[in-house]
Amino acid sequence: MSDDVAAVAAANAELYAAFEAGDVDRMEAIWDDSDDVQCIHPGWQLVRGRSRVLRSWSVIMANTSYIQFFLTDEQIFVDGDVAVVTCEENILTAVTDAEGGLSPSAKVVSTNVFRRRPDGWRLWVHHGSPVLSPVEDPA
Amino acid sequence: MSDDVAAVAAANAELYAAFEAGDVDRMEAIWDDSDDVQCIHPGWQLVRGRSRVLRSWSVIMANTSYIQFFLTDEQIFVDGDVAVVTCEENILTAVTDAEGGLSPSAKVVSTNVFRRRPDGWRLWVHHGSPVLSPVEDPA
Repeated sequence: MSDDVAAVAAANAELYAAFEAGDVDRMEAIWDDSDDVQCIHPGWQLVRGRSRVLRSWSVIMANTSYIQFFLTDEQIFVDGDVAVVTCEENILTAVTDAEGGLSPSAKVVSTNVFRRRPDGWRLWVHHGSPVLSPVEDPA
Repeated sequence: MSDDVAAVAAANAELYAAFEAGDVDRMEAIWDDSDDVQCIHPGWQLVRGRSRVLRSWSVIMANTSYIQFFLTDEQIFVDGDVAVVTCEENILTAVTDAEGGLSPSAKVVSTNVFRRRPDGWRLWVHHGSPVLSPVEDPA
């Protein structure tokens, strides 16, 4: 694994770790400090702009009592100062309407685009989408 | 609009025009000629690799009798040899279980990542996701 790919992998892992921790400060540090950042949460409309994107994460994290991600099938491509990560998010969340147990509740596929900045790779675009059907890769 | 942005806008428009036309050759010309292309159709699993991605489009186009896209809120960012487009796809399709009329049937938000190649901008990643809820941008 090249140094670039390793650094992008760490940045990508930090996104999910920050969400799991519900840590707004870490989430702020992950996102690029520019107004053209963009975020599409699963099933949501597009959210653009740093302040709006961070606010959306604050709302989501405030409403999530417990969440854990198991990332699978992660692939990282670096092209110059841009890196594209795709991965599957296998999500374990607290079940609020049952007996307080945990269950695998969702699968999301994500595209995360990072930019190389002087202080490291910062998140530019996050796009997560729900896997709704059992349609398999037709290949 | 810079020349780069105009060229990316044209490449992005061609993706939807090729789909509307059901034209496999045009779809092949749009995608980058590499095996790290990736595509997430709305609600689907991740599809990777040029041959698999093109096959998925062939299957979808063969099963689509009529489709028309109205793109809204398109934004284009060029960073070196990579361009990221986000847009809303407002989709009009043939209704097969009614009286053969047309109706607005879906809204999808998409992230399209292009790479600059000697022969122009080619599609590297397409990620479309269904807008499932009326959740508005919380800002």
